[in-house]
Amino acid sequence: MNAIYLEDNKLSVRESYPQPEPAAGEALIRVTLIGVCSTDLELVKGYYPYSGVLGHEFVGVVERCDDTSWIGERVVGTINISPTCDGACGLRCPEHCPERTVLGIVAKDGAMAEYVTLPTQNLLRVPANVPDPSAVFTEPLAAAVRITEQTAVAGQRTAVVGPGRLGLLVAQVLRHFGADVTVVGRSEKSLALPAKLGFVTAQNNDDLAAFDLIVETTANPNGFAWAVEKIRPNGTIILKSTYADTTPPNFAALMAQIVVNEITLIGSRCGPFQPALDLLAQGVIDVSVLIEREFALQDGVAAFEHAAQPSVRKILLRP
Amino acid sequence: MNAIYLEDNKLSVRESYPQPEPAAGEALIRVTLIGVCSTDLELVKGYYPYSGVLGHEFVGVVERCDDTSWIGERVVGTINISPTCDGACGLRCPEHCPERTVLGIVAKDGAMAEYVTLPTQNLLRVPANVPDPSAVFTEPLAAAVRITEQTAVAGQRTAVVGPGRLGLLVAQVLRHFGADVTVVGRSEKSLALPAKLGFVTAQNNDDLAAFDLIVETTANPNGFAWAVEKIRPNGTIILKSTYADTTPPNFAALMAQIVVNEITLIGSRCGPFQPALDLLAQGVIDVSVLIEREFALQDGVAAFEHAAQPSVRKILLRP
Repeated sequence: MNAIYLEDNKLSVRESYPQPEPAAGEALIRVTLIGVCSTDLELVKGYYPYSGVLGHEFVGVVERCDDTSWIGERVVGTINISPTCDGACGLRCPEHCPERTVLGIVAKDGAMAEYVTLPTQNLLRVPANVPDPSAVFTEPLAAAVRITEQTAVAGQRTAVVGPGRLGLLVAQVLRHFGADVTVVGRSEKSLALPAKLGFVTAQNNDDLAAFDLIVETTANPNGFAWAVEKIRPNGTIILKSTYADTTPPNFAALMAQIVVNEITLIGSRCGPFQPALDLLAQGVIDVSVLIEREFALQDGVAAFEHAAQPSVRKILLRP
Repeated sequence: MNAIYLEDNKLSVRESYPQPEPAAGEALIRVTLIGVCSTDLELVKGYYPYSGVLGHEFVGVVERCDDTSWIGERVVGTINISPTCDGACGLRCPEHCPERTVLGIVAKDGAMAEYVTLPTQNLLRVPANVPDPSAVFTEPLAAAVRITEQTAVAGQRTAVVGPGRLGLLVAQVLRHFGADVTVVGRSEKSLALPAKLGFVTAQNNDDLAAFDLIVETTANPNGFAWAVEKIRPNGTIILKSTYADTTPPNFAALMAQIVVNEITLIGSRCGPFQPALDLLAQGVIDVSVLIEREFALQDGVAAFEHAAQPSVRKILLRP
C-alpha cells in the first residue's frame, strides 16, 4: 500500500509498504482522510527520533475486526496506545502511560497510509452528520478541548496567541465555553481569518490590558515571552506548542516574572475525543475555513512542503 | 539612627539616617531583630533597581501610632503596602497591587534600621510564646505557607529542591500539612541539617522515582531543570526562587517536557502571616536550627558578606 514514511528525518512515499495486520483487539481501518499536523512537521525536522509511517489525525472505515460490531463503522481514533495498562501507575492513562506507543509519533505506524490498525478501545464512531473533512479535525479539536479540563475558561479575558491551525480551534472552543477571546498574531494578514470568524484580534505589539488566561500556540519562544508579559498577576498561561532549538529573549527575567506575579503555567497536550465529536456534530466549531488544500496521499512530499510554509492552514491527504 | 542603606548596588551602614515619621494610619516601630533574606542579597547584586534602607523580615515594638491600641505591642509586618487599594482591580491585594510599595524592596524604606514605619493594616501581634528569634521568621515562613494556598500538598510525594534557608522552612511546612517530603541537595554536607530535622534526603544525581510535587528553592536554573526532569506527568512544580542572569541547560527541551507531560508550574511569592504565626506559636516549625549567627546592625556590611557565602543559614541583625 502507499504510505508516507519518515526515516533519518527523510520523508518519502513508499508504494509497496506492507499493509498492517490487526492484532487481537485491534481493528484494521481503511483510511479515508488524514490531516498534516505541526507535530508531523516537527518530526520531519528531527524533533523526536521517530522512524515509521507518519500521521495521527485521521478518519476511516473499519474493514476487519474480531469484534464484528465495528466492521463498516466510520471512525476516528485516539493516538495514545496502552492496551495492557491497568491504571496502577495513577497517571492519566493512556496519555501519560510510560509504556505507551503513540500513533505516528512513538513506535507505532501512523495513518498516512491506505490502512492503519488501532485497538478498538481507541476508536470512536463518527456521527453521521459529521463529514470526513470535519471528522479529520477531531484530534486537534480534542487537544483544544483539553484546556477546558485543565482550567476554568468561562468569563475569562483570554488571549489565544498564534492565529494558526491549532490557535483557531482553541479560540473557537474557548469562545464556545464562555471565554472572552482575543486572537493575537504578528501581522494584520494573519488576523484576517480570525476576524472573519468573529474574533476580536490584536497584533502582538498592540498596547493591551492584561489577560486572565493566555493560550500559547505559536511554537515560537517570543510567543511565550509575550504571554508572560501580558498575563495578569495570578493568571494562567496554557502552553500548547513546543519550541525548536531557540532560547527565549531573557529566560531569567521571564522566570522572575512568573514568580513575582505568581503566574500558573500549564502544559497541555491530548484531549478527550467524545466532546470534540459532539462539538462537531452540533456544528458550533467551523473547521471548513481552516482547510487549505487537499493532496493525494502519493503526493505526500509536496503536501508536506506546502504545509511547512508560514500561515498555511490545514493540509489534508486523501489515500 | 543606624540604617543599612543600598544605593547604586553599594551597601553601607548610615549612622545618621533620619528616623522615619509615621503618616496617618501608620505605626512607628522600634525594630528589635531583622533577618537577611536571599532577596536582600539579590537586591545588592542589582536584581532590582532599589535604593533605600533594606530589610523586610523583622520583629519590633510599636512606639508611636494614632491608634493607641498598638502602642507597646510586639509586631511583625506584611511587606506589600497599598493602603488606598479598594480591590477594584480584582487582583490578590495588596500582594499584586500595581500601585504597591514593598518594604525594603520597592520604593519603601525597610527594616534594617533602628526604626521602621508601616500602616497598621500591615501589622500582626506576635503571640507571647513566640520569641523574637522565631518571630523574625514569620515572613519567609508565610512564603512557605503560601504554597498550601496554591496547590494540594497532603499525601503528595514531594521534593523540596535546595536545602537552604527557605527550602527548610518549605519542607517543614509541607510536612506539617501532610506531604511526604524528600529534601534534595547537591552535596551530602548540605543535607546534614535536613537529615537532622528528620527528612528523607537525596542528592540531585540520585536515581529517584518521579515526584507529584516539587518545590524549587535553589535560585539556580539547574534546580529548575532537575524539577522538570523529576516531576511525574500532570505533576506540579512550585517556583519559589528567581534566577540571576543565566539560561537553563536546554530551554526548548524543558518547555517541550512541560507540554508533553502536562506539567503545571506555579510561581509563588508572599504568603499569609497569621497561619505562619500560628505555626510558630504551636511550636511545629523548628526555626532555631536555621539561625547561623547574629550581627549588630552597625556590622551590617560584614553580615551581608557572611550571608552571601554558600550554605550559610539565616543571618540576623540586632539594632
